[in-house]
Amino acid sequence: MYDLLIHNAWVVTVDGNGHIIPDGVIGIQGDRIVHVGPQSAGDALPAARETIDAARGIVLPGLVNAHTHLPMTIFRGLADDLPLKTWLEDHIFPAEAAHITEDTVHWGTLLACGEMLLGGITTCCDGYFREEAVARAVAMSGMRAVLGHGVIDYPAPGVPDPADNIRTATRFVQQWQDVSPLITPSIFCHSPYTCSDTTLARAKAAARDEGVLFQMHVAETRDEIPPVGERGASPPLTHRLAQLDLLDNDTLLVHGVWLAPDDIDRIAGSGSSVVHCPESNMKLASGIAPVTQMHRAGITVGIGTDGCASNNDLDLWREMDMTAKLHKVAGGDPTAMPADSVLAMATREGARAIGLGDRIGSIEKGKQADLVILDSAHPAMCPVYHPVSQAVYAGGGEMVRDTIVAGRVVVRNHALVNGHMAETMAQVRAIARRIKNASAKRPGGDTGQGSSL
Amino acid sequence: MYDLLIHNAWVVTVDGNGHIIPDGVIGIQGDRIVHVGPQSAGDALPAARETIDAARGIVLPGLVNAHTHLPMTIFRGLADDLPLKTWLEDHIFPAEAAHITEDTVHWGTLLACGEMLLGGITTCCDGYFREEAVARAVAMSGMRAVLGHGVIDYPAPGVPDPADNIRTATRFVQQWQDVSPLITPSIFCHSPYTCSDTTLARAKAAARDEGVLFQMHVAETRDEIPPVGERGASPPLTHRLAQLDLLDNDTLLVHGVWLAPDDIDRIAGSGSSVVHCPESNMKLASGIAPVTQMHRAGITVGIGTDGCASNNDLDLWREMDMTAKLHKVAGGDPTAMPADSVLAMATREGARAIGLGDRIGSIEKGKQADLVILDSAHPAMCPVYHPVSQAVYAGGGEMVRDTIVAGRVVVRNHALVNGHMAETMAQVRAIARRIKNASAKRPGGDTGQGSSL
Repeated sequence: MYDLLIHNAWVVTVDGNGHIIPDGVIGIQGDRIVHVGPQSAGDALPAARETIDAARGIVLPGLVNAHTHLPMTIFRGLADDLPLKTWLEDHIFPAEAAHITEDTVHWGTLLACGEMLLGGITTCCDGYFREEAVARAVAMSGMRAVLGHGVIDYPAPGVPDPADNIRTATRFVQQWQDVSPLITPSIFCHSPYTCSDTTLARAKAAARDEGVLFQMHVAETRDEIPPVGERGASPPLTHRLAQLDLLDNDTLLVHGVWLAPDDIDRIAGSGSSVVHCPESNMKLASGIAPVTQMHRAGITVGIGTDGCASNNDLDLWREMDMTAKLHKVAGGDPTAMPADSVLAMATREGARAIGLGDRIGSIEKGKQADLVILDSAHPAMCPVYHPVSQAVYAGGGEMVRDTIVAGRVVVRNHALVNGHMAETMAQVRAIARRIKNASAKRPGGDTGQGSSL
Repeated sequence: MYDLLIHNAWVVTVDGNGHIIPDGVIGIQGDRIVHVGPQSAGDALPAARETIDAARGIVLPGLVNAHTHLPMTIFRGLADDLPLKTWLEDHIFPAEAAHITEDTVHWGTLLACGEMLLGGITTCCDGYFREEAVARAVAMSGMRAVLGHGVIDYPAPGVPDPADNIRTATRFVQQWQDVSPLITPSIFCHSPYTCSDTTLARAKAAARDEGVLFQMHVAETRDEIPPVGERGASPPLTHRLAQLDLLDNDTLLVHGVWLAPDDIDRIAGSGSSVVHCPESNMKLASGIAPVTQMHRAGITVGIGTDGCASNNDLDLWREMDMTAKLHKVAGGDPTAMPADSVLAMATREGARAIGLGDRIGSIEKGKQADLVILDSAHPAMCPVYHPVSQAVYAGGGEMVRDTIVAGRVVVRNHALVNGHMAETMAQVRAIARRIKNASAKRPGGDTGQGSSL
């Protein structure tokens, strides 16, 4: 007797061997997958408390958004099409300083989780400040997450004195260890250019002591490449990270746009993982990460949406499509970055990158029941010659019929089961009105978009 | 008394002056917009046979998909991640030769139109064979379209003898002139490398005689650039087109990936337009079209999805997002290709490119009532600081609540009003089974995807 049974399903397991079951059944007990296999012709369906007919739709492992800043939904579209410095210094930093409170983080995170669950993302990896408020909201949403409290050598929301930065992050980890099976705490060190050597080393040591993931932005823009000095080229960027003992299996490097071949070899040797954020890197014109080379070196690479201020949504279907197409055109090779690699990045590899590879990322017996059922009734789901191609090149939020996290149905027939979205959206709109009014008063604070179409 | 009134709408007019009405009303009589303006506080709404409350959602001109091959939905995902030559010669050409019939064209086109209308596309510009079957299906769907019958110097579906190619295309134009206000016939000459000088010149002359748009693929791949001969570089690609008198106001050049600066100047001088198909160009690794340079030269540029064999969907939201982001990263400039330019390409400029600029492409008094209403209830529609950014960077099919073509509501609350989609999809699935079976029997005919994940 299963708790939940899914049948009539085109199961893409992403198990590492490309196993696809054209007419599959998935049996779930509690939060776990206990059976995956073909439906025997003529046999009755196994008994279950609840049975879901996938109606010949594609069933995938829940998508893993390996890098985001959840509360930044409140800044979605606040400032676009601007030079990076103007965008950050005139818009995002002032908005964060003025508007990131427990309250705004709460509502912004709830909105982000609703958007992601409706879009088939069952797990995310976040890094931000006031992370305890993020964690409480994520727990309410029913989503799985790795949540990293931010560390930076500047005053930050909730951490007015940078001297407290590592202590605050460590306290967050200790408070959220073992609170919920869906929430895994982490430490998020902002970047090598906003943290001193001492901060970087101490933050990694704290993460190591607590046994948690250490996340860090690395090589997002060209400005981070060490300059060529009088005595020739400096050592590559990751030389410093290795000297500080930051690189090991439990380190996640975000972006990696400007990693040099030496960096890639060093990261591969260390066992650290990378998150690719193609849409954010493209929108901010940061560059194109050498993901094909990372794959060749054996680095585990996940995919992330980044925050809504630089994207402007949390849509991993679009990131997958972008990843496949960007690397084909950048390398002049239509066989580069094939659909199966990309789907793996958004599921199994992403799960490994954020330290949850043994629990999620594929549809296999013993793994957590995190699943997405695509709606076979949508016109763009017809025909389907290859379910993996379909998911990567023609999948989208409009096709997500049901989303299941740890055996619990959180999206049913295109709607959130936990229906608090109307209040959340009303709260976020009120927050946005305050942000817009404050922004309009700042010199250069209004981008003027819409007045010059 | 209006026939249709839309109120409580955030109207993005795309009128060329960036006019946005935060609390707008649109009055429609028959197929035409007769009033666009702000809602007067306290005043009663004007009387109308039908009133639609946009619920504070964004209202845009219907999107214009300026280049596609509608019947190719039946090949969606048939062959992906392959070298261009293998993809074309081992998969697409044999599939077209074997499976493009009146019947498959009918169902494939109906499917395409359903997908596009649900995704907010109200007008498309198509080029294919058996175009009379395309036209009948488009007319059934309620979509607006420019439809070009194909001309090529090889045997083609419905045109076994290439000697008949221009006569067949011209007959299609004559048969569909003035049949339906929604359908505008055209001639689609495949390309300069599949048509002789004589064919190109005669096809353009026929289009000119009939007063219709002349469409042609140009400079999609690097192979089309004239080779450097013994006596130095050949004249640029468009030199030949100009010699043949192909370039004027009524010519639409598709792709233009490998246009040189000289070509761009010549096209700008001629008044011809260009369609940019970023996703197709990226997926096939064709290259990145110099759209920023085209804009600088004053060329009208629309956006197209291309056919489903090379994309794999008909989603203009994704094309807009891709256009903005691709050109930012390619040029290393986050201010390049701003949201307002991109939205204009997908509406007003696309309409001009396909010869319908005086009738559609913006929300203005006197224009056709082709409109999209975005659903303010979707989490990714919250908050909205700038409706244009929102549409380009966070818009998607899942947000299209209602679609209106020529004053007729064709999508209401996320569903097609004309509900024949289930039969259409069943028919296309049956066609796809036949294609798959035939493909499996051909040597090298199965891509094997799914077995090597």
